[in-house]
Amino acid sequence: MDSVKINKEELLKFCVKAFEACGVNPADALDCADVLVAADARGIPSHGVARLQRYINGLQSGLMDPHVETEIIRETPVSLMVDARGALGAPVSCQTMNSLLDKAEKSGMAFGAVRNSNHYGIAGYYAMKALSRDMIGISMTNTAALGVPTFGKQVMFGTNPLAFAAPANREKAFVLDMSTTVVTRGKIEIYDRDKKSLKPGWAVDKDGLTVTDPGPLLDDMFHRRGGGIVPLGGDSETSGGHKGFGLAMMVDIMTGVLSGSAWGADIYDKGESSARVSHCFGAMKINLFMDALEFRHNMDKMLEDIRSMSPAAGHERVYFAGQKEFEAEALSLAEGVPLAGNVYQSLRKIGQELAVECP
Amino acid sequence: MDSVKINKEELLKFCVKAFEACGVNPADALDCADVLVAADARGIPSHGVARLQRYINGLQSGLMDPHVETEIIRETPVSLMVDARGALGAPVSCQTMNSLLDKAEKSGMAFGAVRNSNHYGIAGYYAMKALSRDMIGISMTNTAALGVPTFGKQVMFGTNPLAFAAPANREKAFVLDMSTTVVTRGKIEIYDRDKKSLKPGWAVDKDGLTVTDPGPLLDDMFHRRGGGIVPLGGDSETSGGHKGFGLAMMVDIMTGVLSGSAWGADIYDKGESSARVSHCFGAMKINLFMDALEFRHNMDKMLEDIRSMSPAAGHERVYFAGQKEFEAEALSLAEGVPLAGNVYQSLRKIGQELAVECP
Repeated sequence: MDSVKINKEELLKFCVKAFEACGVNPADALDCADVLVAADARGIPSHGVARLQRYINGLQSGLMDPHVETEIIRETPVSLMVDARGALGAPVSCQTMNSLLDKAEKSGMAFGAVRNSNHYGIAGYYAMKALSRDMIGISMTNTAALGVPTFGKQVMFGTNPLAFAAPANREKAFVLDMSTTVVTRGKIEIYDRDKKSLKPGWAVDKDGLTVTDPGPLLDDMFHRRGGGIVPLGGDSETSGGHKGFGLAMMVDIMTGVLSGSAWGADIYDKGESSARVSHCFGAMKINLFMDALEFRHNMDKMLEDIRSMSPAAGHERVYFAGQKEFEAEALSLAEGVPLAGNVYQSLRKIGQELAVECP
Repeated sequence: MDSVKINKEELLKFCVKAFEACGVNPADALDCADVLVAADARGIPSHGVARLQRYINGLQSGLMDPHVETEIIRETPVSLMVDARGALGAPVSCQTMNSLLDKAEKSGMAFGAVRNSNHYGIAGYYAMKALSRDMIGISMTNTAALGVPTFGKQVMFGTNPLAFAAPANREKAFVLDMSTTVVTRGKIEIYDRDKKSLKPGWAVDKDGLTVTDPGPLLDDMFHRRGGGIVPLGGDSETSGGHKGFGLAMMVDIMTGVLSGSAWGADIYDKGESSARVSHCFGAMKINLFMDALEFRHNMDKMLEDIRSMSPAAGHERVYFAGQKEFEAEALSLAEGVPLAGNVYQSLRKIGQELAVECP
């Protein structure tokens, strides 16, 4: 089936109703649905409604409990430590980030950590909540281990994404939202499906040596026999792999360790429990340092300088973090959110099963 | 001349006296000297006393004014915005970080920015000040532009280092201190001197194409004709160069833009002014989130798990960020700080000129 384009509001409504049909209350269902639809709208389909079926499976099997009460463990005017107790990732993350934004409004800045959570979608979604409030936003999460340290051969960290958002004025914003591994597992799977060789410097096998055949790698990873994806910077110090490894650990420290939860190789999908991932969020008022409008104007200058740079031979343009995603979002609002054919079919199937009309 | 090993205290005293001989007051001279000697002791000679001559040139030519009064522009219980007014980088950075640590002691966390500053040495030095106070420390700075954006051909950002330090108990600490470019200019210069080819994916020429001959590249960079070093992740999206570019911009936003100062291609050594670089520092109390001692114990577990991992075939060990530097420091304390022969000779020359006895 060919890809389709679905009106964003209708897609959102459908996802909300699907979550509600699984026992999620309306407010939480909106958070869960909005972060998935935002990913598709922003051109990040790997984190979009293609994951809806997994959420529904988790809710129906009881692995995800939509009624659990999250618990505030520690709280100060500048901080919040939350135990999600296995709750859905998006609602507890939205609540925590919103609370931190309110705290930062009064105190200037605030950071929070959430433990025992589940997948929270695109990291940038939460960081971007700071933009309309003249703040800088930060978001990170640890994830199931699939990354191998520089010079290692066993997994020790996840894709551990890091997001940073800073507002502009005429320009939309600078939104960095990056995994700290060189690629994601999803990319390896696509290369396997398409029978393509991996680029050298993406992954190592169970002996820690460069691997380009995705099939055996995925099999070894699935059975936890060793091998995995390498950090941003590749599989050696020569190209800075140790820096990417350091960034992945930094995210693990700010999420898993700082929240008193699991980290590193202890995070993997066990099946019988929540994902046990941890998140960290931050918000900082720009006017602690300078006038926020002046900052926004200066950000415009910075971003416009980059988008107007002459590109390298053979390339069309230079772009900054977030630019492509804002462009995709504008197109999605105008023309509908693009969904791959098989993803759309999975939504229709969900609609039938849950008796929710699919747009 | 062969390399030498110098007693750390004696090397420090010599550098302090050299700075004092150039009109720097004793407290500031100690800050300037300590960060240089710390770099050599920790195995980072590119940022060590090899730079002493440059500082002395700057002070003697009047480019760096040791008597300038820095100014606090904005201040809250959680923040500090400082105009260094062209002061030496190390003293204003030490004062700012120390003030932030005191603020964090009371408020839980604090961030500060410093503008119109000069080179501040190794970024990790300031982040590590948080370790003994049960805090997480952050430090970053922008630097003279030499980095080319993904798909670009003109420089737009510096090596823009980022440092993050988290304390442990039995283990020393996790200290990430990394440039956000794939390599530094110093490395390109070494390859040029040794007549070696650069690795593909380190730098691009003035057309934005991969370059491996360091000579013409350095010449083009010096004359600002285009070309430069690429971000961590290399010269394409395939290996994540756009992520490194995003990190470099994040550092530039948190330093140059947030402090209302210069950023991007506007930062270069003009000769007639200070380096006009900006820094950002942060400190966060661990007990906002969990008991600090428990955190330190958990960090021990994390770091010991990594250092005891089986290495990849052909490698001796897996290590974490900061480990090699702490090992170098222990060796420097036991056996003396290692200095290359030509660096030691430059110190002797400085000693003769300033009438300060060289150890």
